[in-house]
Amino acid sequence: MAKRIGKHTAVLDKPIYIISAASTAGKKEGEGPLGKLFDNVFQDDMYGEKSWEMAESKIVKDNFSLALKKAGLEETDLCISGDLLNQDSASTFGIRDMNIPFLGIYGACSTFGEALGLGSALVDGGFAETVLAGASSHFCAAEKQYRAPLGMGNQRPQTTTWTVTGDGAVILSSRKKIGAPIITEVLTGEAVDMGVKDANNMGAAMAPAAAELMTAYFRETGREPNYFDVIATGDLGYVGKTLLIELLAAEGYYLGNNYTDCGIEIFDKDSQDTHSGGSGCACSALVFTAMFYKKLCEGKIKRMLFMPTGALMSPTTSQQGESIPSIAHGVVIESR
Amino acid sequence: MAKRIGKHTAVLDKPIYIISAASTAGKKEGEGPLGKLFDNVFQDDMYGEKSWEMAESKIVKDNFSLALKKAGLEETDLCISGDLLNQDSASTFGIRDMNIPFLGIYGACSTFGEALGLGSALVDGGFAETVLAGASSHFCAAEKQYRAPLGMGNQRPQTTTWTVTGDGAVILSSRKKIGAPIITEVLTGEAVDMGVKDANNMGAAMAPAAAELMTAYFRETGREPNYFDVIATGDLGYVGKTLLIELLAAEGYYLGNNYTDCGIEIFDKDSQDTHSGGSGCACSALVFTAMFYKKLCEGKIKRMLFMPTGALMSPTTSQQGESIPSIAHGVVIESR
Repeated sequence: MAKRIGKHTAVLDKPIYIISAASTAGKKEGEGPLGKLFDNVFQDDMYGEKSWEMAESKIVKDNFSLALKKAGLEETDLCISGDLLNQDSASTFGIRDMNIPFLGIYGACSTFGEALGLGSALVDGGFAETVLAGASSHFCAAEKQYRAPLGMGNQRPQTTTWTVTGDGAVILSSRKKIGAPIITEVLTGEAVDMGVKDANNMGAAMAPAAAELMTAYFRETGREPNYFDVIATGDLGYVGKTLLIELLAAEGYYLGNNYTDCGIEIFDKDSQDTHSGGSGCACSALVFTAMFYKKLCEGKIKRMLFMPTGALMSPTTSQQGESIPSIAHGVVIESR
Repeated sequence: MAKRIGKHTAVLDKPIYIISAASTAGKKEGEGPLGKLFDNVFQDDMYGEKSWEMAESKIVKDNFSLALKKAGLEETDLCISGDLLNQDSASTFGIRDMNIPFLGIYGACSTFGEALGLGSALVDGGFAETVLAGASSHFCAAEKQYRAPLGMGNQRPQTTTWTVTGDGAVILSSRKKIGAPIITEVLTGEAVDMGVKDANNMGAAMAPAAAELMTAYFRETGREPNYFDVIATGDLGYVGKTLLIELLAAEGYYLGNNYTDCGIEIFDKDSQDTHSGGSGCACSALVFTAMFYKKLCEGKIKRMLFMPTGALMSPTTSQQGESIPSIAHGVVIESR
């Protein structure tokens, strides 16, 4: 039985093994600092399909197949996945031929954190032995949907982040695999809305949600930030990272060199013109599967707090002038 | 520990009590055969808000508050909810002030089934003691988003269903409550795509998903349809119900008078001009919370298979001419 030790933190009863990780990334991501770490990098935004949306679905399908192959499995008991497209359609169209029972989730760019947390809770409770958990996004499909048609060539403010193109997926399992990192705790966030309305400044919208969940976690466990080798948020970018550090300091928690943000890791600030950094469901999913997962497997990271963050606006709510509720979901991952 | 007895069926270890149920319904639903059973019926589609989307969010919030009040709780450990609006925004905007850790899900009109299944699995595994599970939809917001602006006054084909306006929510708990119905088994469906492309015939798109999950359940458990007092699908309507009966008969399972569809229960076929019946996340959520829940509490239903169904298209995929993947999620509910 899992044990809830606070409003936001649950400690799992059993070690949940992350037995494989797969990453499929777009051209720009392949040209970034993590380029050589991705399993696959594709050059064509259309991925051989008729639309960006169908491209994203195919990327999901191919990357999920790769995660299964790496784990030596034909299928899992469950698949948990989500994305930024209206009605989760990258996931639902991606998995429609895979014959795996499917739970669609939506947490905007926190989706990969939600998938890992939910998947490990369900494996812990015996509901499934194996879970395929993933998240995807596509720059072109997301920009078109949330902001403006790409063909307009709108200038991007310096606070914007660049939606990452690709898919990251892992297989969670109750069966021991030597050397595989394990998920030990799950953090579930609340929707937080501080009134930010600018869809071009998601870092500012999301930082309060990350701060609230992280502060709650430290309070509920009595731990300090230096308990972890690495603390990584999802896609706050430079703007949101700075805000998070300030918000935590105001609560008496000081994030040091062990803290980074996946939106900062994935692109090169000087040469790639991505302004505040990367974002999108695939941002944290790719940085985790391509970089952190390997470091955990190699024992270079012993304890990690991984907390993807999501801005929960829709195109409709933004057009209606509404503010942006945000959320964060996290997991504690250890190597032993 | 829950036990997976087949690819789609998991048997929960502990009884999960449905300790309260709340229903808030629109005017048309209030004029239908179940009108007197709803907790609240509102007359204004705008619900006092500036848009249909914000109206739906407010309905979610008010109905969730009602479910908590009926259970005598201030909050639950978790909230699991979803809806039809892009990016689940009825749920995310509805719960943003509620201070409850939130997991957004998306299963189209199967969402209430997904919420019940996921919620009871998480309570069973000790991840939460109490879960608020709900789903909503709004006719005006859904029609505008998926089909055509209401002001156009498009004629609706006879195969269409009418998106139900409202929210249904329950509180799941591990703590025994005498007389409360219990969830004993969870059925998780796969995405099924038989190539139906008509967003005005969702019954035909969804019936194969319901048939696949129902057949799988009977095979995996060795049970027959007559094991249940009531089998209720989500929102297949008259078209989909007929198809499901045929599809199951082809597999050797005969659905009798114990089988109904929530899309048929909620509106009056003759007087309400809803053609094939009701649909939308709120369809099964309202029929369950207003009618079946009470019959389970009263012992008039002893064993029920409840299986909401969802059509996973998005406005974008429909405009791109794609087919409609569908899914079903179910739970077995018993009164003791």
